[in-house]
Amino acid sequence: MASQYRYQELENWLLRGISEHRWRLGERLPSIRTLCIEQNLSKATVQHALQRLEAQGLVEARPKTGYFVTLPPTHVKKSLNVGQVEAPRPVTVSDLFLDIMKRSAAFDLLPDLSPGRLPPGIVSLNRSIGRALRRQQGEHHQYYDAPAGVPRFLEQLASSYAKRGWAARPEQLCVTSGCQHALFLALMACCHRNDVVAVESPGFYGALQLLEQLGLRVVEVPSSIETGMNIDALEEALKRWKIKACIVSPAYATPGGALMPINAKKRLIELAERHDFAVIEDDIYADTALNGTPDPLKGMDPNERVILCSSFSKSVSRDLRLGWVSGGRWHDRIVHLKLVTQLATSRYLQEGVAEYMADGSLGSHLRRQRNELRINRDCLIASLQTWPCETRISSPQGGLAIWVELPEYVNTLSAYLPALDNGIVITPGPLFSTSDQFRNCLRISYAHPWNSARLGALAKLRGLLL
Amino acid sequence: MASQYRYQELENWLLRGISEHRWRLGERLPSIRTLCIEQNLSKATVQHALQRLEAQGLVEARPKTGYFVTLPPTHVKKSLNVGQVEAPRPVTVSDLFLDIMKRSAAFDLLPDLSPGRLPPGIVSLNRSIGRALRRQQGEHHQYYDAPAGVPRFLEQLASSYAKRGWAARPEQLCVTSGCQHALFLALMACCHRNDVVAVESPGFYGALQLLEQLGLRVVEVPSSIETGMNIDALEEALKRWKIKACIVSPAYATPGGALMPINAKKRLIELAERHDFAVIEDDIYADTALNGTPDPLKGMDPNERVILCSSFSKSVSRDLRLGWVSGGRWHDRIVHLKLVTQLATSRYLQEGVAEYMADGSLGSHLRRQRNELRINRDCLIASLQTWPCETRISSPQGGLAIWVELPEYVNTLSAYLPALDNGIVITPGPLFSTSDQFRNCLRISYAHPWNSARLGALAKLRGLLL
Repeated sequence: MASQYRYQELENWLLRGISEHRWRLGERLPSIRTLCIEQNLSKATVQHALQRLEAQGLVEARPKTGYFVTLPPTHVKKSLNVGQVEAPRPVTVSDLFLDIMKRSAAFDLLPDLSPGRLPPGIVSLNRSIGRALRRQQGEHHQYYDAPAGVPRFLEQLASSYAKRGWAARPEQLCVTSGCQHALFLALMACCHRNDVVAVESPGFYGALQLLEQLGLRVVEVPSSIETGMNIDALEEALKRWKIKACIVSPAYATPGGALMPINAKKRLIELAERHDFAVIEDDIYADTALNGTPDPLKGMDPNERVILCSSFSKSVSRDLRLGWVSGGRWHDRIVHLKLVTQLATSRYLQEGVAEYMADGSLGSHLRRQRNELRINRDCLIASLQTWPCETRISSPQGGLAIWVELPEYVNTLSAYLPALDNGIVITPGPLFSTSDQFRNCLRISYAHPWNSARLGALAKLRGLLL
Repeated sequence: MASQYRYQELENWLLRGISEHRWRLGERLPSIRTLCIEQNLSKATVQHALQRLEAQGLVEARPKTGYFVTLPPTHVKKSLNVGQVEAPRPVTVSDLFLDIMKRSAAFDLLPDLSPGRLPPGIVSLNRSIGRALRRQQGEHHQYYDAPAGVPRFLEQLASSYAKRGWAARPEQLCVTSGCQHALFLALMACCHRNDVVAVESPGFYGALQLLEQLGLRVVEVPSSIETGMNIDALEEALKRWKIKACIVSPAYATPGGALMPINAKKRLIELAERHDFAVIEDDIYADTALNGTPDPLKGMDPNERVILCSSFSKSVSRDLRLGWVSGGRWHDRIVHLKLVTQLATSRYLQEGVAEYMADGSLGSHLRRQRNELRINRDCLIASLQTWPCETRISSPQGGLAIWVELPEYVNTLSAYLPALDNGIVITPGPLFSTSDQFRNCLRISYAHPWNSARLGALAKLRGLLL
């Protein structure tokens, strides 16, 4: 495993202290100043470690007072039930997904392609790509890029992971046409037809679609809307069936924005070692973190069992179509599959985005976006809190959506077409599973600002559902 | 089938006349003026029909004299032998392909990424894309494009096919990340594991790689370097084995630039009907035509059996990563597979390229490039004609390469590494088959100008081989 950074040492020391009750629930941690002096660390290092604990929901910053040991957020009304794990089965996904995707609208209640001001972070992104196009010279356009991608871009990606506890090297990464493409290559590389793949339930519908097309069987592992995949349930499933791969989103899993605690991550890696399966980590939501970005599983992967997949679609632009994969022991096979199925990725695009990362524009964009997402999330939570008291909602610290559990009698699927008649596109609960669960649930995104039109759509939707 | 354009009617009338010996080999066709008057057609229509016959190698234009019925080009020294068809077998492709691809160099003897002036056609392409980026507004970047692509771009593609005898509708097309990606989706859609696929031999190594990864078996159908797949041999193979799909490049097949005659195309379609298989048409080289662009097979496909695949990589830029597919009866499944495996394609890119096509920039680029390719080709032919007299070469009217057949004792594969030591990347004959044929053959590209460095490399290569 990679040697630790100093902030990681401090983070682990604090974690140990919490687990060993040096600091109990509700108690204050030592001040930043004290930690700097006692541990002989810079203020930035101490702050970084504390922010990372905060991002995991383990401590809470109170203005001008300090950091306190805390529970997961308190305004989540109740944890969802963990059901029984069902036997592996082939996947058949409804046409609903295709319909929603054709509306390009999975993340917007009220799709709006009207003109308007482009966010400054996207203006500067487009300028970077434009400059890369103008820098093209000679016969460059006559050559395919190397299948893994442009070294300068891979270096930027690697250095952004180094800040998240994974000492990545550029040659461990391969560029793809988005995260879905990365997941596809990952599954192609580590599974064969009829193999069994474990997924979160509720979980990402795109993964279910891939399993269907590749002829793989699914085991849906019950997942908490706060802490992600239930590792006990996974362990039970592993005793009963040979599982070849497990797809997880430790950082803000869709639909509810669950954050997997460090201990669950450790157990998952241990299980992967013991039962010899691949862990496919969907890291796409990491950069939507509201309080510091959690570390990837990939950083705690001693034997190269984790395949990390990600892209810029959730954090920057869905129109970039630029993702990446780090395939662990399957990496060479993944790069080969990328080459064979689509040769290469645009060099100008990678160069433009590399500049956007290197000159700090990406960081500025993410900071601005974080503030906007926090406002959007809080506004959605406030709206939903006026819904009937049986309504339970998630309270994510990242991701782009809230999971809404409505009274048992509600059928969100049957509200799809009536909502559409009002120009409203919803993502009903059953999309996030293959087993006819979550009929009374709904994912509502806060990716877009709650202007009066969208607030009106939300009110209308409430009327249609309840 | 689509109703005919007037130029097609004239073309067919002239073809009938040639086949019925109204005009014999070496005789002159009626003048353009005569045809205009007798057939009541515009000069442009008559010229278009004549240029199309010329592109098929059936007539030859002599300056200030007229069009003459001709044989295929005379400086091709001898047609290659048609061997026996071998039984279907799984595909295992050598690592050599990967090595060549990693050098981004399959089309350049002497890869040269040094700076220099960008061709004007690429400057204007990049400007169009840059303008599309600057036109992005509002929340556009937050939405995935529809899986099939941007309507305006698909309309441009459709109207360019209408000029080639296929009355395409935009909804028959789906955008992809290049032609290789289109071929991949096509094979995924119409074949299952262990199915048998017929390919040209020698033929495109990328197709062999796809068959290997998808677990498909191959039948290599002997192909002439002038006229492409031997349809008699295909017919024999169809009697012996159940063939699920047949991949062909009717327009300037790699490696030698073969052009499939109209009668062979008709027979291929008839066989597909009779034996119920998919025809996967690789049309990527069509726009490299030196004398008018041949019609696609897709235009003579009454029952939607042809899946057309293409991209801009050979005619405009390999760095665009923009291709398309028209899937016939498999089209919906192909669009679905595209969605599931990579969601969407960049909208800004399609909009930029649509503008580049609509404002005539693509046409200007292709005209300029055609002149350059003709010079490059003729220079390569002149060089190769100084090689020993046992050397046979193809004389393509399109494509980007010449197929060179050397004396039997030569082993081009064993020259690969010594050439590499001199910075020279070659594509040896065995790459273009899975059956250990073509050891004395070599594909040499004329995509790049023959500056003194490349001419030096060619001379060096001759020394290494002979």
